[in-house]
Amino acid sequence: MSKKALVLIDYQQGFGNPDHWGGPRNNPDAETNGLRLLKAWRDADAPVAIVQHSSRSEASPLHPSKPTFAFKAGFDPIKGEKHIVKHENSSFVGTDLDVWLRQNDIRDLVICGITTEHCVSTTTRMAGNFGFGVRLVGDACHAWPKTHNGTFIDAQTIHDTELAILHGEFATVVSTDDVLAQDFKEEAAP
Amino acid sequence: MSKKALVLIDYQQGFGNPDHWGGPRNNPDAETNGLRLLKAWRDADAPVAIVQHSSRSEASPLHPSKPTFAFKAGFDPIKGEKHIVKHENSSFVGTDLDVWLRQNDIRDLVICGITTEHCVSTTTRMAGNFGFGVRLVGDACHAWPKTHNGTFIDAQTIHDTELAILHGEFATVVSTDDVLAQDFKEEAAP
Repeated sequence: MSKKALVLIDYQQGFGNPDHWGGPRNNPDAETNGLRLLKAWRDADAPVAIVQHSSRSEASPLHPSKPTFAFKAGFDPIKGEKHIVKHENSSFVGTDLDVWLRQNDIRDLVICGITTEHCVSTTTRMAGNFGFGVRLVGDACHAWPKTHNGTFIDAQTIHDTELAILHGEFATVVSTDDVLAQDFKEEAAP
Repeated sequence: MSKKALVLIDYQQGFGNPDHWGGPRNNPDAETNGLRLLKAWRDADAPVAIVQHSSRSEASPLHPSKPTFAFKAGFDPIKGEKHIVKHENSSFVGTDLDVWLRQNDIRDLVICGITTEHCVSTTTRMAGNFGFGVRLVGDACHAWPKTHNGTFIDAQTIHDTELAILHGEFATVVSTDDVLAQDFKEEAAP
């Protein structure tokens, strides 16, 4: 396999309570698919960056004082993996992700995580604008709904619309099966 | 007025032909509202940055060899205004926009332009993540539709969804009337 980093964004327990985040999420398979990708990267001893959001708001379930700052099961970084703690949406702002990628001669990224529309989208946009080749794994991400100007937009619409916006401009949107089949010659899940 | 820059993004003639951009746009008033803001900033001698996209693709109507690289009527920068030429979606990547803002002690931005979902959103996300205060003027922007996985999403849905995603996280979404009334004490348009 050529040198491609898997960038896992904000798979944290704080993204758990729908009431806090405006209503029900979409895609309950996001974490399972993220873990399938992580296993493939680990088995191949390929580069992995695991990003953790540290909110500046003490009220946030992602504030580092909260137990929900922790990763969801299976997403803790292990030795040799790059652990990035960020305060902004973009994994490139206030971190050394760009430095790590360039020092390791990594030009291609496979990105996924939580949420599609905020941290995943912003990181994907910057990665594309910085010149990295980016595949965004849509079915390993999920969104939260939004209410704006009195209109409720459900999580699936937020997710699908943001992926449509990103595809072809900042990244190629792919599935977990696509990545495993293309990069690891695994059969797609039945 | 405190020091707030108006950042006008990609009001260029190349954003003209709906057939090139996937179908009909939304919000025919985007340019009129952008010009209302520009007039207010110029009348107040307040800082203005005017961003122009220079595509690397020779097939693009935004390639600098094309007559449609030019600004739409009224959007050419004048003496004293910051003219930014960019190659990426973000007005901060490969440009000195951030340097210009900080050298001029500008911490608050009013952003609008074309398109809501690509260059305006990406610039807004980075501005917010860089710590600027950002107001995004929704009715001075427009979107293009997208077709992804065989599903067509119209421009108004793209526009509304992206604004809902940005509001409260990266920026406060406002109207042209809001800005003129708050910053310049103008009466809202009847």
